[in-house]
Amino acid sequence: MAERILVINPNSSLSCTDGIAAAIAPFAAPGLPRLDVTRIVDGPPAIVTWRDWYGIAEPLCRLVESEPADAYIIGCVSDPGLEAVRTVTDKPVFGTLRCAIAAAMMRGERFGIVAFTDKSKPRQRRALQAMGVEDRLAGTVPLNLDMEVLTDPVAPRARLAEAARQLVALGAEAVILGCAGMASHRAFAEDACGVPVIEPCQAAVTQALLAVVAARAGRLRMAAE
Amino acid sequence: MAERILVINPNSSLSCTDGIAAAIAPFAAPGLPRLDVTRIVDGPPAIVTWRDWYGIAEPLCRLVESEPADAYIIGCVSDPGLEAVRTVTDKPVFGTLRCAIAAAMMRGERFGIVAFTDKSKPRQRRALQAMGVEDRLAGTVPLNLDMEVLTDPVAPRARLAEAARQLVALGAEAVILGCAGMASHRAFAEDACGVPVIEPCQAAVTQALLAVVAARAGRLRMAAE
Amino acid sequence: MAERILVINPNSSLSCTDGIAAAIAPFAAPGLPRLDVTRIVDGPPAIVTWRDWYGIAEPLCRLVESEPADAYIIGCVSDPGLEAVRTVTDKPVFGTLRCAIAAAMMRGERFGIVAFTDKSKPRQRRALQAMGVEDRLAGTVPLNLDMEVLTDPVAPRARLAEAARQLVALGAEAVILGCAGMASHRAFAEDACGVPVIEPCQAAVTQALLAVVAARAGRLRMAAE
Amino acid sequence: MAERILVINPNSSLSCTDGIAAAIAPFAAPGLPRLDVTRIVDGPPAIVTWRDWYGIAEPLCRLVESEPADAYIIGCVSDPGLEAVRTVTDKPVFGTLRCAIAAAMMRGERFGIVAFTDKSKPRQRRALQAMGVEDRLAGTVPLNLDMEVLTDPVAPRARLAEAARQLVALGAEAVILGCAGMASHRAFAEDACGVPVIEPCQAAVTQALLAVVAARAGRLRMAAE
Amino acid sequence: MAERILVINPNSSLSCTDGIAAAIAPFAAPGLPRLDVTRIVDGPPAIVTWRDWYGIAEPLCRLVESEPADAYIIGCVSDPGLEAVRTVTDKPVFGTLRCAIAAAMMRGERFGIVAFTDKSKPRQRRALQAMGVEDRLAGTVPLNLDMEVLTDPVAPRARLAEAARQLVALGAEAVILGCAGMASHRAFAEDACGVPVIEPCQAAVTQALLAVVAARAGRLRMAAE
Amino acid sequence: MAERILVINPNSSLSCTDGIAAAIAPFAAPGLPRLDVTRIVDGPPAIVTWRDWYGIAEPLCRLVESEPADAYIIGCVSDPGLEAVRTVTDKPVFGTLRCAIAAAMMRGERFGIVAFTDKSKPRQRRALQAMGVEDRLAGTVPLNLDMEVLTDPVAPRARLAEAARQLVALGAEAVILGCAGMASHRAFAEDACGVPVIEPCQAAVTQALLAVVAARAGRLRMAAE
Repeated sequence: MAERILVINPNSSLSCTDGIAAAIAPFAAPGLPRLDVTRIVDGPPAIVTWRDWYGIAEPLCRLVESEPADAYIIGCVSDPGLEAVRTVTDKPVFGTLRCAIAAAMMRGERFGIVAFTDKSKPRQRRALQAMGVEDRLAGTVPLNLDMEVLTDPVAPRARLAEAARQLVALGAEAVILGCAGMASHRAFAEDACGVPVIEPCQAAVTQALLAVVAARAGRLRMAAE
Repeated sequence: MAERILVINPNSSLSCTDGIAAAIAPFAAPGLPRLDVTRIVDGPPAIVTWRDWYGIAEPLCRLVESEPADAYIIGCVSDPGLEAVRTVTDKPVFGTLRCAIAAAMMRGERFGIVAFTDKSKPRQRRALQAMGVEDRLAGTVPLNLDMEVLTDPVAPRARLAEAARQLVALGAEAVILGCAGMASHRAFAEDACGVPVIEPCQAAVTQALLAVVAARAGRLRMAAE
Repeated sequence: MAERILVINPNSSLSCTDGIAAAIAPFAAPGLPRLDVTRIVDGPPAIVTWRDWYGIAEPLCRLVESEPADAYIIGCVSDPGLEAVRTVTDKPVFGTLRCAIAAAMMRGERFGIVAFTDKSKPRQRRALQAMGVEDRLAGTVPLNLDMEVLTDPVAPRARLAEAARQLVALGAEAVILGCAGMASHRAFAEDACGVPVIEPCQAAVTQALLAVVAARAGRLRMAAE
Repeated sequence: MAERILVINPNSSLSCTDGIAAAIAPFAAPGLPRLDVTRIVDGPPAIVTWRDWYGIAEPLCRLVESEPADAYIIGCVSDPGLEAVRTVTDKPVFGTLRCAIAAAMMRGERFGIVAFTDKSKPRQRRALQAMGVEDRLAGTVPLNLDMEVLTDPVAPRARLAEAARQLVALGAEAVILGCAGMASHRAFAEDACGVPVIEPCQAAVTQALLAVVAARAGRLRMAAE
Repeated sequence: MAERILVINPNSSLSCTDGIAAAIAPFAAPGLPRLDVTRIVDGPPAIVTWRDWYGIAEPLCRLVESEPADAYIIGCVSDPGLEAVRTVTDKPVFGTLRCAIAAAMMRGERFGIVAFTDKSKPRQRRALQAMGVEDRLAGTVPLNLDMEVLTDPVAPRARLAEAARQLVALGAEAVILGCAGMASHRAFAEDACGVPVIEPCQAAVTQALLAVVAARAGRLRMAAE
Repeated sequence: MAERILVINPNSSLSCTDGIAAAIAPFAAPGLPRLDVTRIVDGPPAIVTWRDWYGIAEPLCRLVESEPADAYIIGCVSDPGLEAVRTVTDKPVFGTLRCAIAAAMMRGERFGIVAFTDKSKPRQRRALQAMGVEDRLAGTVPLNLDMEVLTDPVAPRARLAEAARQLVALGAEAVILGCAGMASHRAFAEDACGVPVIEPCQAAVTQALLAVVAARAGRLRMAAE
């Protein structure tokens, strides 16, 4: 009965998928759309290269074609395949990086990104360019840690805190966690750096809620008129 | 117990305030923050002039100082007093226009605004400039109707449909309703023009939900660690 | 008989008002518009916060409504209330910051601002955004001194010289004094840093002279034709 | 004794030179710098081509080297040779187009240019690019009249009025007269189009007054200290 | 012995591949790198959708990995897979659209694109954004013809001429043929519209020549030193 | 019979002219246009000042008027007189700096310039502004060596290597040699800094080849049809 928002983790990491599920769980509530998370089982362990990024578009399209939902979220902070996925469904499709940028811009005029690796930056640049806000990026600081380290409850925190503080020193008035694998460290990072820290899957879920709940309300209103 | 998100309508119009309350009601759910709406009782009937816009900042600050909440939304699609209100609380404060722009940018690369009046444009320009996305505005089309006409269930629809279609013809891939008074017409406008139509108070409520629910989840996690 | 240009200091500081009067006095001459300076007697001691900035718009509007002049200048280097004041008179209204930016751009392609305090930057950003030249700002260096220190003939000079030199090192080809209270130090700062230093009230007075004298000449010509 | 501001008309037209002199005469006053106008006697009848524009730089440099003044103005609305002239004197040198753009931006956020000919636009683009405000140009409308027609008291007025109104329709909130030869028509054009009309030589003279008078005041102050 | 520049047509169309070969043949010469053209045999008949665009990246990578060359050109005017292909070779890889934009900018300050279909525009926007020159695009006019019509020696010419002229009317000072299938019509289109018309594969071949010949000359020089 | 591309060195330096000839020689081939180099015999020893830059436009125009060619290249990395020369011929005219920027942008999204002297930057800024890519410049590092030192096979190399590496550290993904006198050091600099290094005369020659060879092919095709 209820609508469904489907977050698709384009990598195959279970710990990353679990982290996404844990990050968005607090946004589930009775009467609101159900929040489901899935992953591309035969995707790469992480989207690290341009080849990963391009190559995952087709599996994402196929999954969306076979999994009905009222809104889709591409759960990787480089928005792979976004434009392609939009062509295979008439439901809204959200990129987590774009949603995180939008949310960060609601809290400050310059923002920074704690990146998964050195190599993430050029892909994130594309999302910034697509939104026309490349010059609002105060900086990018990479962690360069493995996905398994990143999703550890403790291991990445010292480096994450340092990265977030560096971004604030560069002028960031909000900070984006540049990989879904950092989701469990949001509050820690915010305490560490003193400016709002945005977790991209949470940001995307709330954009999806906006679209799905507003659509439902509209249908009810139009039916009642 | 539950957190509270407070939407402040800076004008005194009851029909406008009711329209905001109706627009955001579908985003209320058990376990999520309570959504309250209030208005500036001795505010102007609508924020139409620059003088209204500047003058309402102080009443907004005073109201926020006296009304505790976990997040505040300035419920007028020109974000009056936003920077001032941010200085009187350490809770997040959202501008509905900025949130609507952010939401529109999640659905397309160019967007348009159906404006309340001819005179709205220069104030909306300031929000676009603050976000650095002035060149993503496909156009602005004003309705030039009274607030009481605007909030009527039927009266403004033909003109609204025409305005939204004009914006699409100008290249808008999403359309923003430029006044909280148009809230009840969102679904109608979307049907009329064929691209996503964003109601700014709804967009702002979901940004506030992101901030408040993520903060709560963070507190719980940090307490549990 | 003669036209009148009225500079309104939106703060209540007498030393600041006197500094403005002294700064613009050399631009008075027989046959040219009279240059008057006034202040908002019950304004804040300085425009330091966003709340000051928004709140002073209404007193500025009222003063302009009651004080006839041929051009008005808002004598604070953050252009408070500019758009509002423009709606209450059909005479030209100038912001000193915008005029200083315009003057600085006549002397170099990048400019810097010696700011009154750390907190001045976000308000100055709005003027830069309104003019579309935010990326021409080489930097901002705050003095963080009290108004009474700032207007002292000697006390602030060492710090001012250092700030101006820092801006030149950042690429500034002209420097703007970011508060009317620094007016008496213009020549000193210019000697110290080696690039043109712009005093905003002087810059605004010459823009007002342009408007008022050109209008007078136009009236005479049109009458003669 | 008094300082001297020298406006150099880079073309050889006497009527154009006279027009400049008439335009700036109202800005002369006892105690202020003397305003002189000269022309490049063997310059072209008007600066119409890129070849004229480049070629006049050297004669301008030579004239400045031989004519002492406290500030120089290049009296052609395409700012020919500006950077070169700046290298042959340590006194300020102003371009009339840049000064007119700066003045127009003090009166509105978009401006238009009534151009001398179709061919003026690429040269004016360079000044807009140098200032970083190309996207603030609402439009350019050429008159395509001979210099002798342009300086006639009556002949060009109908076309000028139409051009100025077209620019306002394109969004211009201020209009720049794109050739010193139009100087005598400023008030007429302003009446015709309803927004401020800027005469570039007047705009440049006031910028030069700012520089020269502020420098004098600074010398006096430094001497007195 | 000689170096080899390999143009890869990412679609399977033989007529399109032949058109590319014919277009670049005049740039072959004794002593210069050999110019080869190949196609992705099991690619789509044309790159028309975002799904085609993302999906072809992997086949392009595989082909480049198996086909040695000194420089590679992606022979489709939407630069599919460019960043991915660059990661599988240390030889230069060129996108034909980017090269065409670069060449057009050598001939004028605004340019237009004759697009294959309505749907081409969003992909071309990405290349413009990556280069930071989106605001130099005067316009895009689609032909909306089948690939087989497009590569016909006569059939598309009337529509092509009209499209090119429309772009000039929109301010284009150079025109880009937006699909390799239009290659044989370059001279015709240039005659029709009167501004330089750029054929993207030719533009890319000359950029590849620059890279390969300069590298060879460098090796010879370094060896001789 | 064959077409001719003429590179005009606007300075009088023989060693610089020889360097250009050596740099472009590898792009000559049977059947392709002949590549000729000439110099302005009574030009300055190098284009170092704005006065040089403006003053050389007229000699360049005269030389082009008297020397028939199928395309012209202004062989100085500040593109002096480019717009003027374009008005005296209907053949394509290329600026070496613009061509180098275009080539650098084909290899990376940010680029740097090794400048001849400190004083080169403002002139190079004009070309960047004309192309609208000023914000893609990662930085400029001057060598500040005499032309005779610069063209020495060994003397400038240590400083050049250091400059190129500094640019890469600033984010440059490609490096431009900012003076034709550095031509013989291209491969050395590329080895030293690890990113593509562009020699502007080579870049310009390939753009000229594109124009001339495409035009010839077009003429042949149109004749055959």
